[in-house]
Amino acid sequence: MPETRYRLMTPGPTPVPAEVLAAMSVPIIHHRAPAFRGVLSGLLGRLKEIYRTENDVLLFTASGTGGMESAVANVCSPGDRVLVVSAGNFGERWASIAEAYGCDLVHLRYAWGETPTPEDVASMLNEHGGAKAVLLTHSETSTGVVADVGAIAARVADSGALTVVDAISSLGAVPLETDAWGLDVVVAGSQKALMTPPGLATVSVSSAALEAARTGRNQRFYLDWARTLEAQDEDPPLNPFTPAISLVLGLDVAVSLLLDEGLEAVFDRHVRLGRACRAGAKAMGLELFSPDEDRSAVVTAIRTPPQIDAGEVIRALGERHGITLEGGRAELVGKIVRIGHIGYVDVFDVTTALAALELVLAELGADIERGIAVTAALEAYGEPARV
Amino acid sequence: MPETRYRLMTPGPTPVPAEVLAAMSVPIIHHRAPAFRGVLSGLLGRLKEIYRTENDVLLFTASGTGGMESAVANVCSPGDRVLVVSAGNFGERWASIAEAYGCDLVHLRYAWGETPTPEDVASMLNEHGGAKAVLLTHSETSTGVVADVGAIAARVADSGALTVVDAISSLGAVPLETDAWGLDVVVAGSQKALMTPPGLATVSVSSAALEAARTGRNQRFYLDWARTLEAQDEDPPLNPFTPAISLVLGLDVAVSLLLDEGLEAVFDRHVRLGRACRAGAKAMGLELFSPDEDRSAVVTAIRTPPQIDAGEVIRALGERHGITLEGGRAELVGKIVRIGHIGYVDVFDVTTALAALELVLAELGADIERGIAVTAALEAYGEPARV
Repeated sequence: MPETRYRLMTPGPTPVPAEVLAAMSVPIIHHRAPAFRGVLSGLLGRLKEIYRTENDVLLFTASGTGGMESAVANVCSPGDRVLVVSAGNFGERWASIAEAYGCDLVHLRYAWGETPTPEDVASMLNEHGGAKAVLLTHSETSTGVVADVGAIAARVADSGALTVVDAISSLGAVPLETDAWGLDVVVAGSQKALMTPPGLATVSVSSAALEAARTGRNQRFYLDWARTLEAQDEDPPLNPFTPAISLVLGLDVAVSLLLDEGLEAVFDRHVRLGRACRAGAKAMGLELFSPDEDRSAVVTAIRTPPQIDAGEVIRALGERHGITLEGGRAELVGKIVRIGHIGYVDVFDVTTALAALELVLAELGADIERGIAVTAALEAYGEPARV
Repeated sequence: MPETRYRLMTPGPTPVPAEVLAAMSVPIIHHRAPAFRGVLSGLLGRLKEIYRTENDVLLFTASGTGGMESAVANVCSPGDRVLVVSAGNFGERWASIAEAYGCDLVHLRYAWGETPTPEDVASMLNEHGGAKAVLLTHSETSTGVVADVGAIAARVADSGALTVVDAISSLGAVPLETDAWGLDVVVAGSQKALMTPPGLATVSVSSAALEAARTGRNQRFYLDWARTLEAQDEDPPLNPFTPAISLVLGLDVAVSLLLDEGLEAVFDRHVRLGRACRAGAKAMGLELFSPDEDRSAVVTAIRTPPQIDAGEVIRALGERHGITLEGGRAELVGKIVRIGHIGYVDVFDVTTALAALELVLAELGADIERGIAVTAALEAYGEPARV
């Protein structure tokens, strides 16, 4: 074996618990067999708990992007006005999907790393009336920003538009209240805080969203909500097409682990992991790119010192220390490293990433403070308790 | 444990070899990491060998239906004429997809269980000129019929239409020559003869199909061929969206197992498994629903005696003997049982299914010949060799 163990510290895919891998390793069962339908039934119920919703949560065998596309494909018709709120790579994806479907795209476009505000959204909706839906990103994984979706959704509701949220990297990591915030569509993916390999997308749909889908004239088949809902409404539920059976079995175990820990405890852990990561980075004298606030609990984006290429840091971490981090996308290439801390992650994973980052930066000649990042991180996490 | 072991004998999902499950059980790696891109590169090459094509084979995280939809979504524009050839459930699916995309649907519709002929296809194409594409099914899993796609494709080529083939349950089980037969689009799924859990669809695309896609005006994003091809053309290849990483690792092992056995040996095994299953069924006095011919090597559909409900047979096999078979769909509900014999299946799996079927039918009062099905199956398989 290599000298150090392999460690995945990206904001998706994320490490998968052994219990989940084990559940995926049993002989495959048929998706129409009672045993599978029983698992599906339990899973769909547990997903509602995690979504905090009474709405149906639809399951698709697809990447998260497939779930996002399902929203536009079902709710909209060609020419419908939609407002896309973007401040990074995944907000841009909403715009690309809306364009592919011939929407009348109104784009509230922030610089990467900025945080969308309810006021800007309200004023755009006011300026461009008649929007059918607002497409926004809860956790913008490319920058580390987590938007205040609750506050934004309240302003969207005032306008009569549907609120459609990409919560792919946030659901199960930071608080998201589908019903209390009035979110019409919430998209998530298996490979983020839900601690399962990629391949499943989940989409909660409000009655207003389903009503819009009934008249939406966009072309769709595999991602059609009504077809999926009809199958899931069977007793016990089915999928309309052969689902990714092993991933469904894994996801069921993973969400059970989350619910066993308790959602509030899960959220608290993520807040403290974010604090720990930021405290460690700051302690070694690095500048944060992502906001230094508790809500930013998904991924911490850290600027490398000006003379150090972030890509080189990531290569060295991977090749020499077995640690996978992600770099920046687009204009941020070479400038930031991103440490993911969602899902099956504890504080010692974060301190390990920080210790290795410190080591590599020093080797590359960065002028950083040595030896205090780990302690600062542990203190910020709350372990050991401050005395 | 239950008294008998669990045995999956359906034509998809199919049993997954332990080697494939093991490959899916390793800690998850990142889809942009060199290790994963290397696997993807090897897999895409091996898929070309199995497809017997120089065309690109595109990989989607989706059920096979997603792969089918990608053909219509990319090749066609609203109003384009397409000829659908259907003789069962999956042929009907082509028609449903074409309708969802607003195609001008010409439907060559056989009764379930019939075998499409090249002459009928040619005469429909002649009668209804200007078809952009012909959508057909290689192996109609709902009936057990395997169509002579090579002969049909030759007639389609004469018309100038694109040949689009659902080979979801046939690829890797029965001969399919993508290039030699001039097939423009061939769709397969991971969960059939490719011996991997469901969740991946593969789609080979000819240059003519890609050219059609360049002007196709249907809405698409996740299933867009150009976007997928652009990512796969990177060196080493990528996926445009986070793929089902664990399934990709599994599929890579599975196709390697197939190629190690040798495609000709694989096809020969399937022919003999089909012969064995049919011989066993006939020996106990049952009537075949699927054709009694070597090409029908994917799934054997068997009529239950008139007074015996096939659903009851399947329930008894599952509950008492741990064997999962499939019944009929639509008008065939209660009338047939289907024994799948594709993928990770050997002759003793077939004899086990036959022995248990014999047992259950006898228990339900059927007047069947006892005790000779297994021997007849082994003889038809060629083991022991006839002397």
